[in-house]
Amino acid sequence: MNEFELIARLTHSLPTNQSVVVGAGDDCAVLDLGVAEKLFLFKTDAVVEEIHFTTTTQPEKIGRKALARCLSDIAAMAGTPEAALVTLGLPRDFDPVFVERIYAGLGEIARQFGVAIVGGETTTSPERIFINIALLGFAARGKCVLRSGAESGDAIFVTGELGGSLAGRHLEFAPRLTEARWLAEHFSLHAMIDLSDGLAGDLKHLLDASSVGAELLAAAIPISRAAKLAGKTGDAAKPALLAALTDGEDFELLFTVASKDAVALLDAWKERFPDLPLSCIGKVTTGSGLTLRDKHGIRPFTERGYVHFAAA
Amino acid sequence: MNEFELIARLTHSLPTNQSVVVGAGDDCAVLDLGVAEKLFLFKTDAVVEEIHFTTTTQPEKIGRKALARCLSDIAAMAGTPEAALVTLGLPRDFDPVFVERIYAGLGEIARQFGVAIVGGETTTSPERIFINIALLGFAARGKCVLRSGAESGDAIFVTGELGGSLAGRHLEFAPRLTEARWLAEHFSLHAMIDLSDGLAGDLKHLLDASSVGAELLAAAIPISRAAKLAGKTGDAAKPALLAALTDGEDFELLFTVASKDAVALLDAWKERFPDLPLSCIGKVTTGSGLTLRDKHGIRPFTERGYVHFAAA
Repeated sequence: MNEFELIARLTHSLPTNQSVVVGAGDDCAVLDLGVAEKLFLFKTDAVVEEIHFTTTTQPEKIGRKALARCLSDIAAMAGTPEAALVTLGLPRDFDPVFVERIYAGLGEIARQFGVAIVGGETTTSPERIFINIALLGFAARGKCVLRSGAESGDAIFVTGELGGSLAGRHLEFAPRLTEARWLAEHFSLHAMIDLSDGLAGDLKHLLDASSVGAELLAAAIPISRAAKLAGKTGDAAKPALLAALTDGEDFELLFTVASKDAVALLDAWKERFPDLPLSCIGKVTTGSGLTLRDKHGIRPFTERGYVHFAAA
Repeated sequence: MNEFELIARLTHSLPTNQSVVVGAGDDCAVLDLGVAEKLFLFKTDAVVEEIHFTTTTQPEKIGRKALARCLSDIAAMAGTPEAALVTLGLPRDFDPVFVERIYAGLGEIARQFGVAIVGGETTTSPERIFINIALLGFAARGKCVLRSGAESGDAIFVTGELGGSLAGRHLEFAPRLTEARWLAEHFSLHAMIDLSDGLAGDLKHLLDASSVGAELLAAAIPISRAAKLAGKTGDAAKPALLAALTDGEDFELLFTVASKDAVALLDAWKERFPDLPLSCIGKVTTGSGLTLRDKHGIRPFTERGYVHFAAA
């Protein structure tokens, strides 16, 4: 059983109450806490040694990544992060300087995005370090963007360049908070998600939540330098396009807007964010599932991105 | 380096912002999110296989305990829990039925206390299961009770009976949410904490936060049946009084009130909660540190409760 099958089994009848606007199944939970102009966003996420970082990863980057992953989920709802709690699982013989350096990395990115670190917990984790972040944020009421609003005919956009993140970018990516809020403020975004499991897998989550399908243009998918380089290094490597479609941890934004807004959005984006590519990579269709159009025609695309617990 | 020394090093200069009323160092963080009549409480906590439960623990009880620990921290601030997120770290060969039963236990106690489970995350944890809970709650503005308000002369109270929790109670304890809110509504509580590390250790946290000391009356400390039984089983066992003072995971409330309120509080408590003992166990003093008065006189009490990473 992989993680998505498990989650489906665990989340079908969760307890709820009157505060819940959106429960399990989006980038963040959305809560109505009684503030007229705001909805609150609630997110938790963990990184585990040898899964999300290695024993040789610079500790500041481990801390940075732990929080940045959650910040990216707040970005995916066009929100603003507010306060975080940190749970540290540590082996009994942990090195205090290493842990302080993890916290230094956490603190630096928290300050950069105005996030308060308001405490947490330490516990024993004998074999490997884990770091869980709980993050609370907010979005302007009416501006919070879900996964579930994509409509047939929408243009599909993605920020940045995709694939090959494990070569280094997964430790240094910039959560797209400013970009997402700007987008939601200036355009009617129908649906949005951040890319953590890979373009194909995360787009599939968005399509399923919206009960639609999509057709991607192979030539339009922005491929990172790292994915291109890796694609050239040998037989075992993924072709660069496949890497851009399925590699995890890009932490870019994927969103859809009505096709009539697409050109104006691209123009305004280039002016506002000249250094960050924005690509229109395809369109939302009726039906379900993902197809890929290239010079040979259209074919269903069924490869997925990263999946925890999946059989190797 | 033990967990408290580590926490002191990590929390001395955390990033903050205008939402923070109380950051690291109390049972929960306290946030002002712009609601006139409420402050919000934010807590995270993890349980780890073989540390907080064993491979033979009934899975429903694992889930129950994971959430109940956080509920107890909300109780310690006289708050009400609202919404929780669950991070599950699972070995690759996890048993889906076992995980569903963990969730069933989580769901049952969540429903009991009106808590919505609004999602979470699953990740790979190769050697052992961990469960991290992030919990958001609230307290009436002006009724939230911190650790830091104890004053010299205060009477010290504790609910329930202490010690020997590992014999079973640590999996079945009732978070004292109703009791704490009733207390805060009817009396001026000066300081409160829940007992997770043991009476002596947690009282020390409260005293340090309040810059005061305390004198406990040995004869007044309520000792659980489990601690009394364990104290009789052999040379290796802790004396029952020491168990009541230092065993972890009681999850009872410890609080202080002005001595003039002590008798009225005890009387009202007995009427409202006839089945749950409430004991006045001593008084807050000037200075610092903890002394224990018994038939031989007064002596400093320096043993601590449970400490993660402490040398054995």
